[in-house]
Amino acid sequence: MPKNQEPVYYGDYLKLDRLLDAQHPHSPKYGDEAHEEMLFIIVHQVYELWFKQVLHELRSIYRLFQQPSLGDSDLYTVSHRLRRVLTIQDLMNDQVAVLETMTPQEFLAFRDYLVPASGFQSIQFKELEIMLGLTRARRIAFDQQSFYNRLHDDDRNYLEQLEQQPSLFDCVDAWLARMPFLEFGEFKFWQHYQAAVNAALDRDEQIIRDNSVDAEQLAQELQGLQANRDNFSAIFDAERYAELQQQGAVRLSQRAMLSALFITQYREEPVFQLAFQTITALAEMDEKLTIWRYKHAMMVQRMLGTKIGTGGSSGHDYLRRTTEQNRVFKDFFAMATYLLPKAALPQLPDSVKRALGFQRD
Amino acid sequence: MPKNQEPVYYGDYLKLDRLLDAQHPHSPKYGDEAHEEMLFIIVHQVYELWFKQVLHELRSIYRLFQQPSLGDSDLYTVSHRLRRVLTIQDLMNDQVAVLETMTPQEFLAFRDYLVPASGFQSIQFKELEIMLGLTRARRIAFDQQSFYNRLHDDDRNYLEQLEQQPSLFDCVDAWLARMPFLEFGEFKFWQHYQAAVNAALDRDEQIIRDNSVDAEQLAQELQGLQANRDNFSAIFDAERYAELQQQGAVRLSQRAMLSALFITQYREEPVFQLAFQTITALAEMDEKLTIWRYKHAMMVQRMLGTKIGTGGSSGHDYLRRTTEQNRVFKDFFAMATYLLPKAALPQLPDSVKRALGFQRD
Amino acid sequence: MPKNQEPVYYGDYLKLDRLLDAQHPHSPKYGDEAHEEMLFIIVHQVYELWFKQVLHELRSIYRLFQQPSLGDSDLYTVSHRLRRVLTIQDLMNDQVAVLETMTPQEFLAFRDYLVPASGFQSIQFKELEIMLGLTRARRIAFDQQSFYNRLHDDDRNYLEQLEQQPSLFDCVDAWLARMPFLEFGEFKFWQHYQAAVNAALDRDEQIIRDNSVDAEQLAQELQGLQANRDNFSAIFDAERYAELQQQGAVRLSQRAMLSALFITQYREEPVFQLAFQTITALAEMDEKLTIWRYKHAMMVQRMLGTKIGTGGSSGHDYLRRTTEQNRVFKDFFAMATYLLPKAALPQLPDSVKRALGFQRD
Amino acid sequence: MPKNQEPVYYGDYLKLDRLLDAQHPHSPKYGDEAHEEMLFIIVHQVYELWFKQVLHELRSIYRLFQQPSLGDSDLYTVSHRLRRVLTIQDLMNDQVAVLETMTPQEFLAFRDYLVPASGFQSIQFKELEIMLGLTRARRIAFDQQSFYNRLHDDDRNYLEQLEQQPSLFDCVDAWLARMPFLEFGEFKFWQHYQAAVNAALDRDEQIIRDNSVDAEQLAQELQGLQANRDNFSAIFDAERYAELQQQGAVRLSQRAMLSALFITQYREEPVFQLAFQTITALAEMDEKLTIWRYKHAMMVQRMLGTKIGTGGSSGHDYLRRTTEQNRVFKDFFAMATYLLPKAALPQLPDSVKRALGFQRD
Repeated sequence: MPKNQEPVYYGDYLKLDRLLDAQHPHSPKYGDEAHEEMLFIIVHQVYELWFKQVLHELRSIYRLFQQPSLGDSDLYTVSHRLRRVLTIQDLMNDQVAVLETMTPQEFLAFRDYLVPASGFQSIQFKELEIMLGLTRARRIAFDQQSFYNRLHDDDRNYLEQLEQQPSLFDCVDAWLARMPFLEFGEFKFWQHYQAAVNAALDRDEQIIRDNSVDAEQLAQELQGLQANRDNFSAIFDAERYAELQQQGAVRLSQRAMLSALFITQYREEPVFQLAFQTITALAEMDEKLTIWRYKHAMMVQRMLGTKIGTGGSSGHDYLRRTTEQNRVFKDFFAMATYLLPKAALPQLPDSVKRALGFQRD
Repeated sequence: MPKNQEPVYYGDYLKLDRLLDAQHPHSPKYGDEAHEEMLFIIVHQVYELWFKQVLHELRSIYRLFQQPSLGDSDLYTVSHRLRRVLTIQDLMNDQVAVLETMTPQEFLAFRDYLVPASGFQSIQFKELEIMLGLTRARRIAFDQQSFYNRLHDDDRNYLEQLEQQPSLFDCVDAWLARMPFLEFGEFKFWQHYQAAVNAALDRDEQIIRDNSVDAEQLAQELQGLQANRDNFSAIFDAERYAELQQQGAVRLSQRAMLSALFITQYREEPVFQLAFQTITALAEMDEKLTIWRYKHAMMVQRMLGTKIGTGGSSGHDYLRRTTEQNRVFKDFFAMATYLLPKAALPQLPDSVKRALGFQRD
Repeated sequence: MPKNQEPVYYGDYLKLDRLLDAQHPHSPKYGDEAHEEMLFIIVHQVYELWFKQVLHELRSIYRLFQQPSLGDSDLYTVSHRLRRVLTIQDLMNDQVAVLETMTPQEFLAFRDYLVPASGFQSIQFKELEIMLGLTRARRIAFDQQSFYNRLHDDDRNYLEQLEQQPSLFDCVDAWLARMPFLEFGEFKFWQHYQAAVNAALDRDEQIIRDNSVDAEQLAQELQGLQANRDNFSAIFDAERYAELQQQGAVRLSQRAMLSALFITQYREEPVFQLAFQTITALAEMDEKLTIWRYKHAMMVQRMLGTKIGTGGSSGHDYLRRTTEQNRVFKDFFAMATYLLPKAALPQLPDSVKRALGFQRD
Repeated sequence: MPKNQEPVYYGDYLKLDRLLDAQHPHSPKYGDEAHEEMLFIIVHQVYELWFKQVLHELRSIYRLFQQPSLGDSDLYTVSHRLRRVLTIQDLMNDQVAVLETMTPQEFLAFRDYLVPASGFQSIQFKELEIMLGLTRARRIAFDQQSFYNRLHDDDRNYLEQLEQQPSLFDCVDAWLARMPFLEFGEFKFWQHYQAAVNAALDRDEQIIRDNSVDAEQLAQELQGLQANRDNFSAIFDAERYAELQQQGAVRLSQRAMLSALFITQYREEPVFQLAFQTITALAEMDEKLTIWRYKHAMMVQRMLGTKIGTGGSSGHDYLRRTTEQNRVFKDFFAMATYLLPKAALPQLPDSVKRALGFQRD
């Protein structure tokens, strides 16, 4: 105990007087207390506490990424804290089951008293989305209009100012883009790699032709394969890559995409452990957010069917539509398309291995 | 121990000689054994064992539903066994995480040796889908063609013959349709109910008008509300209901739909516990199958990106597309749209209550 | 929206200004902010919110049990809300994983600033234990002394006054004791039942004698069997039952024990669904609390080894010792010892069946 | 598809004819088929398949550890495969819930037909325990006698021969013992470390004295602290360490213990990532096995109370007793007792840092 330290009491430290006096159901103002309103309040308050914690982690990660360079030790901290965020997300996803113990009839007993409040007014959740990189322009059309509606002015101003800053996505892209995996002097890694991927795609084409069950499926599969060929070759062509970006097919910059591919291909090498864990954790964060939105949508549907929510919109439908589009780090997910088995990899020259830390002398 | 019973040995009882000699990786035939091929085999074998157990339960439930009437004790058995199926499904869904411990590179080390085998050749899974009621005509177009492809003749014949029999959906529909909740003598329950639902929809319309943020959203929400009004009134009009069925908007028969609505509305009444648990469990079975397909699709994408599977088709995309369409019992899910809070329910006359078992004298 | 209702705003409704301003790490007062102190605070605050919710449910259940009689509809409410408590407990148990993302070193960076605060000062958790029936006299010796130590006077007074009131255990015991399963007129159910259980125990003895592998094991198993025989016969003998109670071997009253056994034996009968679900849920609540204490103890050990906690006591050891002893409803758990297969049950006469609701005419 | 490769069919590849024909309930031989016997068989078969997979992983890890030295790439493989084992263990632990969907009455309907088979006859599970290092001499007394009973001769011989080989524990101990963390030339790391730990223990003593609530607790806590002091100093004294080993207080060799402490203390350093992940995974494997035994014991108690199992022994009690004692890697768990916060660590000289890979030039 540091000198001059006052003895600490559990309830004071946690500010329980404040925390446990923040639940004020509205139903008693209009009639009998609806027993389940307490559950409704506490479930949402717990979500807000977790949002606060997730923002605490993401802000600290953001600060690390904003440094000119990111050392191994910082990268450990980043990946350690991202894993914490994922653990919290698992809990938040399971928490939907708690609200599902409320029946529709129990909810209807106080729903009308909450009009027009809505979970879409959670500033912390919106801040989380913006910080990740889900900015206005990236949203689905409907969302672009409605995202800033129904908010108090100061809340809206706060969020709009956040939009002006670089997002975590931007930081991650910059970090990947400055990695030295694009040229290795004499060694033409990427030419070899392209050749090996193309050989693999040729083999896939043969499998499709040998096993297709009818002409329609054959055509469809070949078309998919051709898209893979086109996308892959575009990664090496600045102009065509820019087109893919414009179409929204990819979001990472070209250099960042190549680095991410290199890291993913060599994921098993000890030297790439932390970098691979980091990009994987970002993709999983997206995935768990998607699952949260999905579970939330299903819960709302169980509760209200296609009735409207208290904010006057049929939330479940909205949630459904955004479930897929809102991934920020989806490029990391598509990476597997271009991976090769170890046996098919171009052999790295010793000088390159040494430079990349694969070899200790 | 019954007389004349031979002493039983654990390994014999479980036929472990057979069970543990059923894993034969193919990679050693072509080079080094790929370490992860064992995992690949065992994960799929465990799925097949669970499928066998699920079919064991569903067939027994099916037999109970085929009886002319279903007593409380049978209904207990049905809902007890459905809960078992749900517990197994939870496990099967979590099992995806085990296969995800295999990296794409580890999979690519033996993928080519499995051509053209594919999980779409699992006869037990197809039997499960058909038994539930996911028959050929109900599938998405692509699936109608491909469902019976790539199968050995005897497997295909077996499945096609299963399609001829009534499904579990058909049995459940018949059970609901013969319930006595449509007429209550003098008491016009459904008129009262319609009036109360319409009043609730009017109130929702007012909330929408008071809280819409722009004209476009207002129009959209009002349109959704109108669809609810139309659908609800169609439930009471044989002709329009038939149209909804034809469009695929509903699948239950009209009488079954009304029974399901009545049960869902009175879910909290002890007399409806078992019936409500049964229809809820069926809807959850659908939901957990959906989650299984989704998780499976995500796992395939992590493993292969948009590469093709060993059967020559890009499975993840297929799985994605079928994720939503394949719900058999989705009508139970939509039910909440028309639920009323307890306070708004028409008061049941004592004679009706007694007939329904709400009152004991 | 009720007339005169003010429009509700999400953040106001949830008192987010208060809730999100209740996290004040101490480390910045003594040096750099320890990044993980925020996590430590929020994890404990979330627990306190869930405790509040669990108490909200248990108090409402308690009130229902205090009524002179408990109708089916109330029993539905009891079992519905107990299931909600179980769902929350699952989440609380999984939440331990969130705190485990903090390394020991990260914890040590601020541990000294919290002296002598301790989780043992959580008034809500102590209230929960007392309400269930874990009163002072029932605790392990060490705990009897320390339970009320380190508390502010008003907190201690509050808890001591709670001890004076009947617990949930007492209410449940009274509810079971007033059930009419002890005499059925002419029909000597319990004589038949005793005979059938004794026959089953004889059969077990034969199995033991046939299969024991050595004298020591034989003696040990036979001793266990004899204890079962003694306990079972004591259930029907007021005097010997009182001795078992005195020894702490059983806690339920004799009449309540017999009712619980009857309900457990006929658990599959629709008429006993709700009662069986209720006693099962109470036993599961105990079990999940046990798991919570265990996981908590393991987490503390990972964090501190056998170091002391901030309150100056080596908490993990304490938690370990209380893990098993603190079950309130353990009698429900032991019930299975005396269950019979359906085929061995005495046949109930129709008059009894009708009286118990097994038959509808 | 490699040339000359036969086309592969899903059902053939998985040997489904064999796998799905390995379920033969015994109840039909004696009367009606007990519906739940299928579940009982399949649940145990799935466990056996997972055991086979876990053994597949552990054997491969064992081979890597038996090499004269373990490179980073091998260590990655070890920790990758251990994580897979942990994922499978999570699933096995959750699988207990599936068997719990069987009621005691449902089990009693076929239990007698299985006499005297018992889960204690699972050869694969025993092999798993022996391979980890749970050899005969390490077991609790009761277990030493019974472990090899009730087995067929060839099974017992197989296991007894396994006992003669070094266990995974032995390999891990040797790997840790040959690490170079004990001497750093001039730099007296361990002297500094001892001084810092002792200072921390002094501070703990002050906290205890300042905050103890009565004399008894004070004495108890001081005694615990003294034990920590004694154990810690014994780590540096070969003779006293040997005594601790003899008493069973520690199992690792002295050198291995110091390496494990060093690694745990510097767990956040990138260079120790893989080693720390490995020892943590081993401790977690123990922990998950403990949870499996515990859940299994609770399930048996729910099913049978304190009745005997089919093998004639009251398994749940046995399982309870072994729950704690059977940890193989428990030394890794106790490590936290002697950890220091980063700020209190002795400063490593640059030469040492470089030698350990903390610095790249």
